[in-house]
Amino acid sequence: MTEAPRDQIVLFEHGFVRLDDCMASDLSVVNSARVSFAVRKEAVDDRDAGLIRFLMKNSHGTPFEHNSFCFHVRAPIFVAREWFRHRWSSFNEESARYHQLEGYFYVPSPEAVRSQIGKPGSYSFASAEEALASETVQTFERIYKETYAEYRALIDKGVAKELARAILPFGVFTQFYWTINARSLMNFLSLRNAAAAQYEIRAYAEAVETFFARAMPLTHASFVEGGRRAP
Amino acid sequence: MTEAPRDQIVLFEHGFVRLDDCMASDLSVVNSARVSFAVRKEAVDDRDAGLIRFLMKNSHGTPFEHNSFCFHVRAPIFVAREWFRHRWSSFNEESARYHQLEGYFYVPSPEAVRSQIGKPGSYSFASAEEALASETVQTFERIYKETYAEYRALIDKGVAKELARAILPFGVFTQFYWTINARSLMNFLSLRNAAAAQYEIRAYAEAVETFFARAMPLTHASFVEGGRRAP
Amino acid sequence: MTEAPRDQIVLFEHGFVRLDDCMASDLSVVNSARVSFAVRKEAVDDRDAGLIRFLMKNSHGTPFEHNSFCFHVRAPIFVAREWFRHRWSSFNEESARYHQLEGYFYVPSPEAVRSQIGKPGSYSFASAEEALASETVQTFERIYKETYAEYRALIDKGVAKELARAILPFGVFTQFYWTINARSLMNFLSLRNAAAAQYEIRAYAEAVETFFARAMPLTHASFVEGGRRAP
Amino acid sequence: MTEAPRDQIVLFEHGFVRLDDCMASDLSVVNSARVSFAVRKEAVDDRDAGLIRFLMKNSHGTPFEHNSFCFHVRAPIFVAREWFRHRWSSFNEESARYHQLEGYFYVPSPEAVRSQIGKPGSYSFASAEEALASETVQTFERIYKETYAEYRALIDKGVAKELARAILPFGVFTQFYWTINARSLMNFLSLRNAAAAQYEIRAYAEAVETFFARAMPLTHASFVEGGRRAP
Repeated sequence: MTEAPRDQIVLFEHGFVRLDDCMASDLSVVNSARVSFAVRKEAVDDRDAGLIRFLMKNSHGTPFEHNSFCFHVRAPIFVAREWFRHRWSSFNEESARYHQLEGYFYVPSPEAVRSQIGKPGSYSFASAEEALASETVQTFERIYKETYAEYRALIDKGVAKELARAILPFGVFTQFYWTINARSLMNFLSLRNAAAAQYEIRAYAEAVETFFARAMPLTHASFVEGGRRAP
Repeated sequence: MTEAPRDQIVLFEHGFVRLDDCMASDLSVVNSARVSFAVRKEAVDDRDAGLIRFLMKNSHGTPFEHNSFCFHVRAPIFVAREWFRHRWSSFNEESARYHQLEGYFYVPSPEAVRSQIGKPGSYSFASAEEALASETVQTFERIYKETYAEYRALIDKGVAKELARAILPFGVFTQFYWTINARSLMNFLSLRNAAAAQYEIRAYAEAVETFFARAMPLTHASFVEGGRRAP
Repeated sequence: MTEAPRDQIVLFEHGFVRLDDCMASDLSVVNSARVSFAVRKEAVDDRDAGLIRFLMKNSHGTPFEHNSFCFHVRAPIFVAREWFRHRWSSFNEESARYHQLEGYFYVPSPEAVRSQIGKPGSYSFASAEEALASETVQTFERIYKETYAEYRALIDKGVAKELARAILPFGVFTQFYWTINARSLMNFLSLRNAAAAQYEIRAYAEAVETFFARAMPLTHASFVEGGRRAP
Repeated sequence: MTEAPRDQIVLFEHGFVRLDDCMASDLSVVNSARVSFAVRKEAVDDRDAGLIRFLMKNSHGTPFEHNSFCFHVRAPIFVAREWFRHRWSSFNEESARYHQLEGYFYVPSPEAVRSQIGKPGSYSFASAEEALASETVQTFERIYKETYAEYRALIDKGVAKELARAILPFGVFTQFYWTINARSLMNFLSLRNAAAAQYEIRAYAEAVETFFARAMPLTHASFVEGGRRAP
C-alpha cells in the first residue's frame, strides 16, 4: 500500500498542490522584527506569539517577508488565471506554445454544479437540481472530448500548437511553479480562501493554507485570529 | 465619413488597443536623471538625446519610470494570458464570473494559419497550405459557434456563469485596462514585439509601441538603436 | 508680489513637495472597475461615489492603480530614508557620489524639539522645556556648521565626494523625484500621515495628501471615511 | 581557538554579511524551466548546465526566482542607502527612532582614502597621498567621536532619539535583514559588485556573491560567463 506523500494534496482528480521547497519559520518573523532593537534570538519563546500578534494587528508587514514557499500546482486554467493576478510572487508555467497539452479537464462533481441567485457581485449559490447537474456534467464531458480531439487533429495535420490551443476550453489543466513569501501568501489566502472566492480556487487555496499553517503555526494562528487580513 | 480615433488601433476584427490616458515625455527622463546633480530643465534640448542614449546603454533604468501609460485593450484570452505575466504593471479585466462574455472569438486569417517546423523552442513557421488553412479556419468557426451556444444554454438553464465559462475556448475576446511605465513597457516590447513572440501578441505589442513612440520619441529611438533591450 | 506656485508646498525652510506631473481622476477608478462588466463612461456621475466607497471598503485595490503622480521633493535624509522604503513606486535622487551636496540642513523649530515618554514603540511625546529646546537647536546648528565645513575642506583637499559624505549628518537635505499610483500612495499616507509617524515625515505626507485630494476628490474622501486604510 | 562561522563574513571591522537562511539550488532553476514541457527531475545532470546557460543568455529570468536568500547585514548607512534601492527584495532594519544606535562608525583604512580625477560620472580614483589619507582618517575619527557624544548627551537630557539622530553622520553602522531571490540578486550584483560601484558597497556585494556562488554554482558560473548581466 502506497501512502500519498505528505507534501502533496490531490484535488479535482487531476489537480494537486505540492510543496516543492520551503524556507519558513515563525522565528524569522520575530528576528527580523527585533532587528529594530538590534536583538536576535536562536529560538522562538513564549513571548513571541504576542509579538507576532502585535505585528499582524498593526499591519507591520515586512517581518513576514523573510521566508519563501515554492509550490508546484496543477489546476484548470480558469483557476490559474485568477492565481496569476498575484504579482508579488514568481511563476513558471507549462507552455501550450512549445508543448502539446494533455487531455486533462476539470469536470465538476454533480454537487459542485451551482446556480446563481441574485445580482452579479452580490449573488449567492445553490446546488443545481439533480437533472441540471447531471446534464451539465455531460455537456462538459462532451465538449472537452470533442474540442480536444479537434485540437489533436489540427496538430497532427501540421497546425502550430500555439495556434491550435485557441480552441481548447478553459477547463483544461495546466501546471506551474509558484514561489511566494508569507506576507504575499496571506494576501492570496485572504482573497482566495474566502467566501467571495470561486469554489474551485478556494479548494486550492485551502490546500496552500495547510502547508503555510504547518510551517509557520504562530503566524498562521495570528492571521486567523486577526480576521484573515494580510498585514 | 467617420475617421477612426487617433488614439485607437483596431486589430483582428474585434480587438483594439486604445490609449486611455498618458503622462509621458522625454523631458521627465532627463529631469529625473539630472536630479543626481540637482539640475532641472523646463524643456528638452539638443544634448538630451545623448543623455537618454547614455542612460539606455548603461542600464540606468529608473529615469524611465516617471511616466505612465494607461491602455484599454480587447484581445483573445490566449494573448491576455501572456500579457498578464508582466508584473510591474496594473490590470483590471472583464469578469467571466460576474458577467456573460459576448460571443467574440479570434479566427485567424488564412495567411496566419501556420505550421511548425523543427524542435520546440527553436522552430520556425511556414504558412500552412491553402487547404489546411481553410480547413483550420472552418474548424475554429465551428467549435467557437458550438461551444458558445452551449455556454449560453447552460446559463439560460441556470448554471452559474463562473462555472459555465469552463467550456469556452481560449480564443474568446476579453478586455482590460493596463497601466505601466516606460521602463516596464520596454521590457514588454523587448519580449512581445520580437521575433520569438507569438504572431498574435506581437501585433498587439506593435500597436502599443506606436503610442509609446509618439509620446516619448527620443526614448523610443534610443530603445530601438540600442537593440531593443529594456534598460 | 510673487505668489507661491499652486503646485508647490514649502516646508522646513529648505524643503518642498512639488507636483511635477499627474495623470489622475476618479473617473479612471470607475472605468477600470466597470470593465468587469464591459461598461465604460465618459464622466463621473452621482452613483460613482458609491462604487468608489464600495471598492475601498472591500479592498478591491486594483482600480486605484490606473493613475500616476510624479512628485519632486526636497527633504532631510532621515525623512528620505523612511520614504524610500515604499517599494511600489519609483525614485531618482540627488547623488552625493557625483555631486557636492549643498549646505542645507534641517533645524527643528523650538516647538518641534520633543522628549520621549515611556517605552519604545508605545511612547508619547511632549515638547521639551524651553531651555532644552533652545540648547538642542544650537547644538544642531553648531554640528551642521562644523561637519559641513570639514566635508568641504576634505573635498577641497582632493578626497572623493563619495567618501567625504560619510561625515555628513542625516539632517542634510536631499532631493528626489518620486512616482507612484493612488493605491500605493494611500498605503504611504496610511503609514506616514498618521499618529505613529515621525513629526517631520508626517508634514511631508500631509503635503502629498493635499495634491492627492485635489486630483481624486471622491477617492480621497472614501479613503478618509474608511479609516485611512489603503485598499 | 574559535573559527569564524562559515556563514558569516566580517568586513570593515564592525560590519558583516551573514547568511541567515537559504532555499536555493540549481535544480530549482532547471525544474521550473522544464515545467514548460511538463518535465521534472530529481537531481541536476550534465545537460542542465547547458540549459541554465541558455536561460541566462536569452534573458529567461523567471526560472531564477524560485529560491530565496535571507541575509543579515551590518553596514554603514551610506552603504545601506544604496542597498535599499533594490525594490524586488525585503528589508527590516535597526530603528534609530525606537532604539539608541551604538557608536560604531566606518573609518576607511588609509589605503581606501581616495581622490577623484576627472568629471563626475566618468572619473577614476587614485589612493590619496599618505599625508592626506592620514589626515582624513583623523578627521573622520574626530567628527564621529564628537557627534556621537553630542547625540548621547541630547538623549540623556531627554531629547527624543528620532530627533537626536539627525546629527549622526552617514558613517554610522546599521543592521538589517534582507531577503531576495537569485534573479533580483544577480541584478544587485551586476550593479554593486562592479567597477562603477563605490568601493565600500562593492566589498559587501562580493561577500554576498560568495554565498550565492556556494548555493547555486552552475547559475553563478553562467552569470559570470555571460558578462554578469542579470537575466
